[in-house]
Amino acid sequence: MKFTVDQEVIKDVLKKMSKLLNGKSSIPIYSGVLVQTREDCILFTGSDGTESMIHRVPVADGIAGVDAVGSSVFLKDCLEVAKKLKGLITFEVTNTSLMITQDKTELSYGVLEASDYPKVAVEPNSEPIVFTGQEFKELVNKTAFAASTSEVRPILTGINMKFTPEGNVFVATDSHRLGKMQFGESKKELNITVPSGTLEYALKSFDLSNEVLVFPSELQIAFANGNTILYTRLIEGNFPDTSRLIPTQSEFSLVLSRQELLDSLDLLATMTKNSVVKLSAGTLFIKLSAKGDTSKGSKEIVFESYDGEEGFDIAFSAKYVSDALQAMTSSSIKIQFNGAMKPFVIEPVGETPKELQLILPVRAA
Amino acid sequence: MKFTVDQEVIKDVLKKMSKLLNGKSSIPIYSGVLVQTREDCILFTGSDGTESMIHRVPVADGIAGVDAVGSSVFLKDCLEVAKKLKGLITFEVTNTSLMITQDKTELSYGVLEASDYPKVAVEPNSEPIVFTGQEFKELVNKTAFAASTSEVRPILTGINMKFTPEGNVFVATDSHRLGKMQFGESKKELNITVPSGTLEYALKSFDLSNEVLVFPSELQIAFANGNTILYTRLIEGNFPDTSRLIPTQSEFSLVLSRQELLDSLDLLATMTKNSVVKLSAGTLFIKLSAKGDTSKGSKEIVFESYDGEEGFDIAFSAKYVSDALQAMTSSSIKIQFNGAMKPFVIEPVGETPKELQLILPVRAA
Repeated sequence: MKFTVDQEVIKDVLKKMSKLLNGKSSIPIYSGVLVQTREDCILFTGSDGTESMIHRVPVADGIAGVDAVGSSVFLKDCLEVAKKLKGLITFEVTNTSLMITQDKTELSYGVLEASDYPKVAVEPNSEPIVFTGQEFKELVNKTAFAASTSEVRPILTGINMKFTPEGNVFVATDSHRLGKMQFGESKKELNITVPSGTLEYALKSFDLSNEVLVFPSELQIAFANGNTILYTRLIEGNFPDTSRLIPTQSEFSLVLSRQELLDSLDLLATMTKNSVVKLSAGTLFIKLSAKGDTSKGSKEIVFESYDGEEGFDIAFSAKYVSDALQAMTSSSIKIQFNGAMKPFVIEPVGETPKELQLILPVRAA
Repeated sequence: MKFTVDQEVIKDVLKKMSKLLNGKSSIPIYSGVLVQTREDCILFTGSDGTESMIHRVPVADGIAGVDAVGSSVFLKDCLEVAKKLKGLITFEVTNTSLMITQDKTELSYGVLEASDYPKVAVEPNSEPIVFTGQEFKELVNKTAFAASTSEVRPILTGINMKFTPEGNVFVATDSHRLGKMQFGESKKELNITVPSGTLEYALKSFDLSNEVLVFPSELQIAFANGNTILYTRLIEGNFPDTSRLIPTQSEFSLVLSRQELLDSLDLLATMTKNSVVKLSAGTLFIKLSAKGDTSKGSKEIVFESYDGEEGFDIAFSAKYVSDALQAMTSSSIKIQFNGAMKPFVIEPVGETPKELQLILPVRAA
């Protein structure tokens, strides 16, 4: 096998695959990159056993050329070093040894057998669901943060995706809060749960000026973007039915500036190191207050509208509300309450409410 | 005590003092900032017991105003929170409580007694040695990295400063390498050793578009920059006489591009994870080579001149040479050798050699 690529190609492969290559897989070969040269392209494959990525570099003058087809597994280190060279770099594998050359530099490395590299994924054959880069970004950003980080209930570490002809629904919850997004529709029905980490990884490694093609199936899901495909195994188990949690009506409703609420929560949470903030509704404004061991603070925010009882108090985790507000983009938001101990709902104002954030209050100290 | 300052003032104080306030001093009051208001200024003092900083904010319209003189020790947290407010912030201390107000925000904190705050430094009364910001930066950058990071011989963790009417000499060494810089002269003679960390801290917190005034004495040293003074205790003990280490003549001398050597060492060191690199002198170029467990590499560099024996080999730590080259700024450098097992000297080409880097070679594998 022999091929030549520009240093930028190596940089790009390493950037996209670093999460996989630095993974703590117990299978040593996963710390390498499977490199396959064909007449018209070079394929780079990285995997940690659960997630896998295939990146295709087409042959192009001055960027990538193939002199001899073949396949081999390169150690991550040799790509890390090749990244430090400039311009076109030649890789040649003879027996179990790789020679990297560029101008007056010669580096030699051992390689692993391509035949030892596990088959990483099943080629997707269904019709994809197509998102713009921006849509895909919103889908992930408005749900993934609400997924659980605890492995006690693995199913809650994922984003549940319900594909139906009536509309696709994406939900994540750690049982204290929930992020939900509706988007597009699908020809076939499917209810699967995808690791939220994979979606965040896709966001980081994809070029979002291109479309994202989603290929869901019952065993795995694939996300394609430009010349890159990211595969992951699904999380097994049944995702809880969250629809019963979401109230269909509300007693009180408050409209205010998202940024102002976010800044105030940040201030009070930093101040008191106690992440519980109390909200009290007044005639013209709401008052947010918090207490720490040696400090206390309060801040008033003038609301845009409040339809409810004066003197209504509710306490909540500043972090959970901040996370939800940060995931949102509208300048005004609407909070709907159903009493001090019932979950409340935050939705954007002035947009079709395809997005919903739900938060459970806490008992005030 | 009551005063008003712009948020930018608080940000600035915290930025300058964060190293001191986050220090692991066992004296709790050092986690606070001593604040003293006078008719014409506000003084902020931070310390960790060894290093101390006094920052003076003069009264100025729209930036800082004093309503009542007094003094108090503010907890670091309350400044961290005040930093999140915008525009002018009012601080008022009554008894043991601090009220921070700004628009519709009210925060209250406990404070500590100003009289409990230890006296941090002796006001400098000698005449200073004046450096431009750029000179001070060079002085630190070209020596501090060579200081030892091990506390086994504390004296080697400092930069030795010899002030004499014939010229000031600054030296740091960890006994494997040495960085030396000559600069200015002083009326009185003084031989002191200053913690290298303090100088690096000064570099970070100072505004180098202003001069740096150095007030050395036998007990402490003070560095003044704009409205900020940084004090530190000296390191006790005798700094070794390094002048005998530095060869006065050389057998072979090599001139080459600093950047090219730096890039090559970086490549080989990353590649082999073995930081020892071998240099072999040829007719037209030098060859650098290194070996790792599963890899080996070599790179040739065309030199500008070589005055010495062909086939001369020497091995050294890539890190030590890289550190030295990074501290230098000239485009070409001259390396002077006295044999494969003798220290070699790196100096800039085309500048008055007030700077010198010395490195001990290692035995090649």
